[in-house]
Amino acid sequence: MNDDLLKRYLRHNQYFPDEILTRIVAQFKPVVVKKNTILLAKDEIANKIYFVNEGCLRTYYLTEQGHEKTRFIAIEGQVAGSLNSFITGRPSSEFVATLEDAQLFYITRTRFYQLVKEFSEWERFYLKLLESAYSYQNKRIAEMVTLDAGSRYTLLIKENPEYIKRLSNKILASYLDITQETLSRLKSK
Amino acid sequence: MNDDLLKRYLRHNQYFPDEILTRIVAQFKPVVVKKNTILLAKDEIANKIYFVNEGCLRTYYLTEQGHEKTRFIAIEGQVAGSLNSFITGRPSSEFVATLEDAQLFYITRTRFYQLVKEFSEWERFYLKLLESAYSYQNKRIAEMVTLDAGSRYTLLIKENPEYIKRLSNKILASYLDITQETLSRLKSK
Repeated sequence: MNDDLLKRYLRHNQYFPDEILTRIVAQFKPVVVKKNTILLAKDEIANKIYFVNEGCLRTYYLTEQGHEKTRFIAIEGQVAGSLNSFITGRPSSEFVATLEDAQLFYITRTRFYQLVKEFSEWERFYLKLLESAYSYQNKRIAEMVTLDAGSRYTLLIKENPEYIKRLSNKILASYLDITQETLSRLKSK
Repeated sequence: MNDDLLKRYLRHNQYFPDEILTRIVAQFKPVVVKKNTILLAKDEIANKIYFVNEGCLRTYYLTEQGHEKTRFIAIEGQVAGSLNSFITGRPSSEFVATLEDAQLFYITRTRFYQLVKEFSEWERFYLKLLESAYSYQNKRIAEMVTLDAGSRYTLLIKENPEYIKRLSNKILASYLDITQETLSRLKSK
């Protein structure tokens, strides 16, 4: 698996001298996964975090009533995982699964935090990852609590039009926290 | 205003040599604020972050229908603010306000990020702040989407019993994202 996209992603977020980047990227392992594979189940500890080279992942919760609620969708060039469990080492409250056949790179939790100690560049990369994960999540909360279904759908079309093409109505509805019926109605407008 | 609690909070999260801690704490300014004062309004940029020495703060959203949704409550020994706006420098999607008469320390955004560049200890402190802010927020999302009103109330009693004593039913209900009627019903059980 070609690691160009991974290198570009890392360099886009933080400056790395060539030699250090090579040593860091060597800690990432490639893995090919079929569609709809669960990479991490609720209550497991997230010992890996994933970079999407090709395909699509999501993280989701299961409600007490058994409904799936999609928290995050990652496509090519993005990092995904149960970051909370990865940070804390505590059991995950969410699932991580592929939505399409996927080519991924993963790094283990142990290696990741060794790199944080070893390279100040990686510590700074991690800081930026946390900043952007926090911001993304905060934006999502703000949208979920302040916007109605129609406004959330309009925003999705504007910011992530590729989701509409790539994802099933079931996943899209769970991402927007609306029923599939409401989604169909919004799509037909 | 005595800065003992602030120093203890910083030291609890990160090791600082005495001299560096003194220089960092000198960048925090004390401010005394009356109950129900808005420290930051929606669409303003969060140029300050607050440490609660005495009293209580909250951050909240206003929905399209004008309802308040409380995201975070900070009591003595905690940091609060519109962290997303503080990180990104973009307009805040939420309000920050006091819930009680409060003694606060604040640090400006400019000073904060100067310290990140200047002291590796402060950079590490910031990293831990982000980790814990992310984890807290993720836990809140998981609770809001997977638990029903009763389970959320039971969890609040277990984890933050002081909220029940200190906060009005209006604020508690907005924190749990339930109506005041539902809260009264849960309290009477």
